[in-house]
Parts: sequence; C-alpha cells; structure tokens
Amino acid sequence: MYIESNREIQLLRRPVGIPSKEDFKLVSHPVAELQEGEVLVKNTWLSVDPYMRGRMMERASYIEPFALNEVLSGGAVGEVVESRNTDFPVGRKVSSMNGWREYFTSTGDDLQLLPHTEIAEQAFLSVLGMTGMTAFTGLTKIAELKEGDRVFVSAASGAVGAIVCQIAKLKGCYVAGSVGSDEKARYLLDDLGVDAVVNYKTTDDLQESIAKACPEGIDVYFENVGGAHLEAVLNLMNDHGRIAVCGMIDQYNATTPQAGPANLSQLIIKKLKVQGFIVFEHWDDYPAFVEQMTQWIEAGKITWKETVYNGIEQAPDAFIGLFKGENTGKMLVKLA
Amino acid sequence: MYIESNREIQLLRRPVGIPSKEDFKLVSHPVAELQEGEVLVKNTWLSVDPYMRGRMMERASYIEPFALNEVLSGGAVGEVVESRNTDFPVGRKVSSMNGWREYFTSTGDDLQLLPHTEIAEQAFLSVLGMTGMTAFTGLTKIAELKEGDRVFVSAASGAVGAIVCQIAKLKGCYVAGSVGSDEKARYLLDDLGVDAVVNYKTTDDLQESIAKACPEGIDVYFENVGGAHLEAVLNLMNDHGRIAVCGMIDQYNATTPQAGPANLSQLIIKKLKVQGFIVFEHWDDYPAFVEQMTQWIEAGKITWKETVYNGIEQAPDAFIGLFKGENTGKMLVKLA
Repeated sequence: MYIESNREIQLLRRPVGIPSKEDFKLVSHPVAELQEGEVLVKNTWLSVDPYMRGRMMERASYIEPFALNEVLSGGAVGEVVESRNTDFPVGRKVSSMNGWREYFTSTGDDLQLLPHTEIAEQAFLSVLGMTGMTAFTGLTKIAELKEGDRVFVSAASGAVGAIVCQIAKLKGCYVAGSVGSDEKARYLLDDLGVDAVVNYKTTDDLQESIAKACPEGIDVYFENVGGAHLEAVLNLMNDHGRIAVCGMIDQYNATTPQAGPANLSQLIIKKLKVQGFIVFEHWDDYPAFVEQMTQWIEAGKITWKETVYNGIEQAPDAFIGLFKGENTGKMLVKLA
Repeated sequence: MYIESNREIQLLRRPVGIPSKEDFKLVSHPVAELQEGEVLVKNTWLSVDPYMRGRMMERASYIEPFALNEVLSGGAVGEVVESRNTDFPVGRKVSSMNGWREYFTSTGDDLQLLPHTEIAEQAFLSVLGMTGMTAFTGLTKIAELKEGDRVFVSAASGAVGAIVCQIAKLKGCYVAGSVGSDEKARYLLDDLGVDAVVNYKTTDDLQESIAKACPEGIDVYFENVGGAHLEAVLNLMNDHGRIAVCGMIDQYNATTPQAGPANLSQLIIKKLKVQGFIVFEHWDDYPAFVEQMTQWIEAGKITWKETVYNGIEQAPDAFIGLFKGENTGKMLVKLA
C-alpha cells in the first residue's frame, strides 16, 4: 500500500523547564517506495524515556541533540508489513530506534528481530529492553551488587526502578525505595515484595524517612533522581557503599543550575564509589541479559507495569507525564 | 633516665572554622618506668596532616574523634632510647602513630622498625610514608592510572599532590596541577617536570584556566580540594574519566554546609567513576610500595620538599599553616 499519511512527531523548539505540548509538532509525510533490500515497518509501540529530555537541549551530551523540525527518534517495536529483504519477512516483529513515527523504511541494518516468544512484544521496550537492561547493568556491573546488600532505589516505581527492586530481591538483598504517591508505595510493597517505601512528597524529613526505611544503612544506591535524594542518601551510606548513577530526573528540567549536595566529603569518610553509566555501552551483555530475564519472567519472578497512551498524537503528553510522575512502570505509546 | 618533663600537645577545645592556637594546650607529664618487654621512644619528627582536622570534630568520621584534654596522636618517627624488648634495641629508628608528644613507652605492638637506609628518617612520614602511599594508592588503584592518561591534580604542591604529579609523569602521563602561589607553580614546572600549572588564587575563571592547562581534557583527577575545583573539573573530564577523592581541604574548616557542584549530571553524561578512599585500608600494599618508591628515590626519579617547624610547641602553628597554604610538600615538626 502506498502510505501517503505517515504521521510523526517533530521537535518544534527546545523546551525550557518542563516540556509543553507547544514544543512539539505532529506532521505527515508520504513513505518512499521500497527499494530492493528494504522493508516497510509499521510501529506498534513507542518507548517514552526520561533520557530524551537531555537530547532536546542544544548542548552536546552523550548522544547528539535532536534537531529541530525533524522527527524525534526513540525506541520502538513494530511489524514488517512489506518486505524486499528475505532476512525480514512480512509479519516479523522488530525493534529499532526509529520511534515517534508510524511507519519507516529500512535496509534492516537498524532493526533487531524479536525472538518468537509468548511475552508481549512491548516488553522489548521495557523489562526485556533498554529499561530492564539498564536496571540489570547498573545493579550488577556498576554497583557490583552482592547477596545481602542493603539497597535503596529512587523513583522505585518507574520503568527502571521497579525492575531494580525485583532483581535486588531475587539476589537476596534488603530493598527500600522512594516513590511519589501512596498508590505507588502499595504497588512496591504488595506486588513487588519491597521491604520498605518512602513517599518523598509527603515526608517532612527525607533523610529521616529514608533512615527509617533503611535501618541498617545503605550499601547500594540506585540513583534515578539526584538533588535532595542524593544528599540524604550520602549521609546514610555504609562504608564501601556503591552508587550507580543512572539518572537525575530532578535536574533535567532545571532552568538554572541546582546546587549539588553539601556533603560530598562522605565520599572519603565512607570510601564510596559513585559511577555514572550509559546502558548502550554495555550492549554486548544484552543477549545474556535477555536469557536471564526471560527465565525470570517465565518463572513468574519478575512482573512489570505499563502506563499506556494511545496514538502517536499522544506521544508528547506521555513524555510530559514522565516529569509529573504520571507513570507507574514503563511509559509507552500504543499505535493503532 | 627518668623523664619527668615529657611535653605533649593536647586538644583543649574543638576548633570552629580555621583552628587557632587557643584550641591547643602544651602540657608535661612524667614518663612511667619501663616494664619488662617495653621500650622508651624519643620522637624526632612529627607528621602534620590535614586529615587531623576531621578528628578534631565531635562527630564520628572514619576514625574516632580526638578526645579533649588528651594528647593528640599522629604519625611520628623516633629512636629507641631505652629498651627491655630485644626486638627493639636501643638506637633503632621506629615509626608509630604516637605523635604530638616527645617521649612514649610501648610494648612494640604499635611500632614499625624503619629499614636501614641512606634515606633521611623523616621521609617515612612523607614520600615513603602515609602521604607517598596515599599518592600511589589513589593514582594506581583508585583512579586506575594508565599510560598516556591526562591527569589533573589539585593542591599539587602539597605533600600528596607533589608525589602524585611525579608518579603520573613516571607512568608516561600528561600532568597539570593547581597551586596557590607562583613560587609553587615554578616548583612544579621547574623541579617536578609538570606540564602545566594553574594558580587558582590569581585566575578570574578557574574552569577556563584548567581547560587551558588541559587542552585534551582530563582522564584522571586526583582530588585534594573539593568545592569550585571539583565543579570546574567535572565539566572538563573526558569520557570514562576517574576521580580519586583523597581530600576536600576546602570543606574542612567550613562552619556552614557548602553547596556541592551543580553539574553532577556530568557523572552520567561522561560515564565517570568517583571514588573516595582512606589509605589505611590499603596498608597490605605498603611493603610493595616502599620497594618501588625506594627504587625511584635511589634512581633520582622522585624528589620532595619539606616545610619544617621546630619544637613540639610549634606543632599547632604547623597544623594551622596547612590551611593557609604555608607548606610546600610535607609539613613536619622537628623535635630537639
């Protein structure tokens, strides 16, 4: 079929502070005719992730900034609907970084075939994709998790945080986390088996609340938030603790520099290691991760939630919702 | 000889801000008679170190706070002047943590015999002692120094910093450092072969000055200072850089919390590792370190400076001088 209306989301202007819908534009392009060796992919699910906020700024970061008036890119899964490439037959499910559009053509170089599995395809954008891999890499490789560690996770009901909590429990650790609502707290306690939860929005004293949730201190901190969380946790870390810095969502929308923690001398006093990481650099480990995670999922040992917006026109709302705490688990956009 | 006047320095009150002489007290005690198995040691050199400032506070740190109205302790070398212990004959030089007093008795459990060497005994308080070992451990083990790394050192003319600079040069690295006077800058450039120096007291823009001194960025930062130095360096680190946090002398005398760097998201963007350490935890490596460092010294590849105060009554002045930048290299007190 000739696709005249292929809708996509472009970045219209660089957001200042929390992004608004006016920063985005919904446009439509025709899809070019397939050449020999190419396939046409219809995206079915788009991944919506906090790290994209960094790419909306002009300054260089670990990946290129998004260009204005061009389609945004991000994780996506889809289905091959036309094919002139025998490696990617019609009907196969694929993942790619060609999100935030309904259709795209590809030579296959930027596609990964999804395995045949009973697990829903969009799991390859979350628990079996970048977010699950981020949780696994940060905990096991960066924070060098050991059985019996006391673990604290910020943004613990998010797409990464909820998987971190469960992996740490599977590894025999005490696990506490912070969330922004009582509903999320109940999810962690009742569904994920987390040992203690702090609602950072309702506490008068974040450090004291975390201290109560972690009566034996913190050996491993999985950092998704930054700011006041980091300062409080530094005071509660045990000797030789390890902090895996995955994200600092508190900082992403700051319009002026936010002062850092005043207690960095804790790094020396407690001989702490703090390490930032980007999951893409560890992608060689991805096949081993998928094998391990698939086993856990099939054994019912890992569960996850999705917060789903419908239709490409809702992708900006989904993205903005990330910074308002509207998601439990993975934020996704389902395409028609 | 019966020693009735054994002078020692006690902590009279806990300093607020930069310590003053009024925080200390010079007292005299008789030395108890030697028991079987004991030795009498006459200290000849006392080590004066910034970390002692932390022990003057009441709060727990990585070592016990100093008690008020008791003798201060710290590194010292001395000579056995009487002995009822065959392992420690009269005339042997020893090192201990029993500093800030003129004499002490010991069963030998808290003494280390110094090797027979041409190197001056007080070197075992600096280049061959804690400060040299700190430089070596921080660079090689914590910061995982590799040949060709671009290295930046704060407080680069201090007892630790000057050794860091020279080890990094011996390992084939580009080395730049910051100091607080032009005289110290010349010492680094002319005597230690450092590639570039920043005088942080005379620059209008610390980050720009460090950037000029490190035109290819920074792979390893040896942190002795904290504060504005850390913030500037975070912006200049290369991908996968490593920061060994040895000290934060900018913070030690702060009477109110000092905000930390506003750019900790650089940890993620550049995948940095930041690690604090305490040299005493690595003391198993000390014999190997002494062997390596002695070789370097005997080959003329490592030099060092000492700033010497005379007499135990000057120990407080020497200590206070650390925070005014009065030392180049190791701060020591020579006893009569």
